[in-house]
Amino acid sequence: MRRGTNLPAIGGYNQAVVLDAVRRQGEGLSRSEIATVTGLSAQTVTNVARRLLDLGLIREGGTVIDGPGKPRTLLQLVARGRFAVGVHIDPAVVTAVLLDLEGAVVEQRRVPTPSASDPAVVVDLIARTVDTLIDRSGVDADLVLGIGLASPGPIDVVEGVVLDPPMLPSWRHVRLRQALGEATGLPVLLEKDVTAAAVAELWSSGQAADRRDFAFVYYGTGFGTGLVIGGEPIRGASSNAGDAGHMTVSATGRRCGCGRVGCVGSLITPHELVRRAVEGGVLTGADLSEEARREAVASGDRVDMALIGEAFGVLAERARDGDGGARAIVDDAARHLARAVVVLVNLLDVDTIVFGGPFWDAVGAEVLSVLGPEVRESPALVVKHPIDLAVSAIGADVAAVGAACLVLDHAYSPRPSALLISA
Amino acid sequence: MRRGTNLPAIGGYNQAVVLDAVRRQGEGLSRSEIATVTGLSAQTVTNVARRLLDLGLIREGGTVIDGPGKPRTLLQLVARGRFAVGVHIDPAVVTAVLLDLEGAVVEQRRVPTPSASDPAVVVDLIARTVDTLIDRSGVDADLVLGIGLASPGPIDVVEGVVLDPPMLPSWRHVRLRQALGEATGLPVLLEKDVTAAAVAELWSSGQAADRRDFAFVYYGTGFGTGLVIGGEPIRGASSNAGDAGHMTVSATGRRCGCGRVGCVGSLITPHELVRRAVEGGVLTGADLSEEARREAVASGDRVDMALIGEAFGVLAERARDGDGGARAIVDDAARHLARAVVVLVNLLDVDTIVFGGPFWDAVGAEVLSVLGPEVRESPALVVKHPIDLAVSAIGADVAAVGAACLVLDHAYSPRPSALLISA
Repeated sequence: MRRGTNLPAIGGYNQAVVLDAVRRQGEGLSRSEIATVTGLSAQTVTNVARRLLDLGLIREGGTVIDGPGKPRTLLQLVARGRFAVGVHIDPAVVTAVLLDLEGAVVEQRRVPTPSASDPAVVVDLIARTVDTLIDRSGVDADLVLGIGLASPGPIDVVEGVVLDPPMLPSWRHVRLRQALGEATGLPVLLEKDVTAAAVAELWSSGQAADRRDFAFVYYGTGFGTGLVIGGEPIRGASSNAGDAGHMTVSATGRRCGCGRVGCVGSLITPHELVRRAVEGGVLTGADLSEEARREAVASGDRVDMALIGEAFGVLAERARDGDGGARAIVDDAARHLARAVVVLVNLLDVDTIVFGGPFWDAVGAEVLSVLGPEVRESPALVVKHPIDLAVSAIGADVAAVGAACLVLDHAYSPRPSALLISA
Repeated sequence: MRRGTNLPAIGGYNQAVVLDAVRRQGEGLSRSEIATVTGLSAQTVTNVARRLLDLGLIREGGTVIDGPGKPRTLLQLVARGRFAVGVHIDPAVVTAVLLDLEGAVVEQRRVPTPSASDPAVVVDLIARTVDTLIDRSGVDADLVLGIGLASPGPIDVVEGVVLDPPMLPSWRHVRLRQALGEATGLPVLLEKDVTAAAVAELWSSGQAADRRDFAFVYYGTGFGTGLVIGGEPIRGASSNAGDAGHMTVSATGRRCGCGRVGCVGSLITPHELVRRAVEGGVLTGADLSEEARREAVASGDRVDMALIGEAFGVLAERARDGDGGARAIVDDAARHLARAVVVLVNLLDVDTIVFGGPFWDAVGAEVLSVLGPEVRESPALVVKHPIDLAVSAIGADVAAVGAACLVLDHAYSPRPSALLISA
């Protein structure tokens, strides 16, 4: 049932609207500029600004003179007024970041993902990582709003459980949210990693702030998409939206775990690319350790992503150097991904694809040089508008950053939905 | 830029919230029940109800006694308080409906889609159809809010133009919205037909009202999807979301217009099914007119959908009667569609697929008997929740009904976005 709007809810909503306006304008805004930008009355802006000043979220900065009247005081975000922790659980590594209100990474930690099958060990490791992160940052722990947790899907957001993500065999049905909340004393939000990455793009300032309809193509251990339509993340019925791995993009190639040939998710993973490179003699004993070569051609869920990552780095360097064999493997992957991108664009009418994730940068330029023309000149492309193929500016830690952004977003973003729920 | 909320905008929003609450409760609600359901204060409900009574949108109905206090007066929707016109342009037929506030079809008209290449002829035909529709209904023309226009994509909603939809060769770049507005004197909204169908499901009362995350699979001359996530239609950057036709679902079969083999949109159209039936000897001269058989095996955009529809009706009847050849063709289509549905469910995490459109009912039961197990038992299905495979209760005219719902939705739905825009 949609709910109506009485006055009390609007206070918090307007607070978020004003904070958002100030945050998006780096050098600050005067009260009258805020009124113009937000559509709020001057009196409302004055009241809201007073509360935000009291909370230590904004400060009065310099003054501007822009006419005959008295100089106006600029209101600026206090970047270090609050902080949020983001944790990304990846099959290879657990990344934790501490973000300030401007979305800048204040502190970062990485630890290898525990392969222990005891959930308590897993929770303890993450809790200690978060504690160390906050300690080392020197930040007042009382200013930390909470922890955002990004996990590969499928997840159960109601129970706060990571279900059975591929390539994380020991992570099944761990009640992570509750356990981590108890261990750290902080509120914990759980989100699928690819959606977190999309939220990071939404929350970041600059060019990305204008992006309202995009798919974030996340290239990590696996391939997934985070979807944003009309400026809102698409989560779906169980918050597991974004699995594009079983789109068929080829009539040939290695068989996917689902039993079919040609699933994009099985054709373009770093593991699959290095497997082809080793099997095809593109990477030999002269390029890789025996261990890495063995891992490259291994099958099953429990691959050592550190070794795969090492091999992928060599393959990517070869491709950048123009080696024909390496380039052919990367180009094939780019063509497969292009077909999936065309399906995404047709289905969701997004005008931007943002590429990122830990394995993206090593091959990004090569992939885009093939994928760009493949997408834009595809006879299967239905929409008529230009398509922006952009690279995330946030870097390899985008899912962890996005997880922290979730916390900021939850606390400070002027979502109409927040207004409705609290009314 | 997200905008803040001053008081004036809330009036219209709260009006929509109250009307929505009354509309969803067929027998009516008392003012105090409305306050409970909407979260609005008693005073606000009283004020809003007075305005809605003045506008003739609600009436005071019977009274209820549910305690020791004085009996409460029920407020009920005046179904015939306002009306909306919906027009669906299909390659074969233009359907126009007049809907009342309850979403009931008061009057309906169908005319063959003009093949004239002169836009003026096209606009004139639709305008006269709408005039006749309103005339025959006996409804006061002043109570008609506007016209919703549903068209195959791609459309240009900014310019109000139907671009170059497949199978509508004479409809390219007609400035339909403006021309139809001038010809009828009514406001006109343009929407892609599949999105209109999804809006019809959202607006309809009953079971469908609880659906928040679904894809409407529209089976008409072509195949398309209307997407709803979190109770809001997904339109995308240019309002052309929902084209799923180029998802690859087979390694074999007829080549699609895009040059590839296996696109679901090319494999499951009524035309393709009757083509296979005629070419495979399932439908012979004993079943079909010479004309219809010739049309079935014809290629290109300009097929006569009346003849295709006739042949499809015979094929569907055969399949229902258990004819092996006919059943094999329908079963193949069901398997192809199942693969596309799995991709949709994985990508958007919808928990419901609603099937409908003019060609659905003839084969729906047969398709679902194959598609259901194929989807639910697919090893490629990632999400863990049950998937409801539902049939639209609205019938073959769902796109026209949805187009009219757009008008009602625009005027009376409590969308947070409306609140934001008007603030």
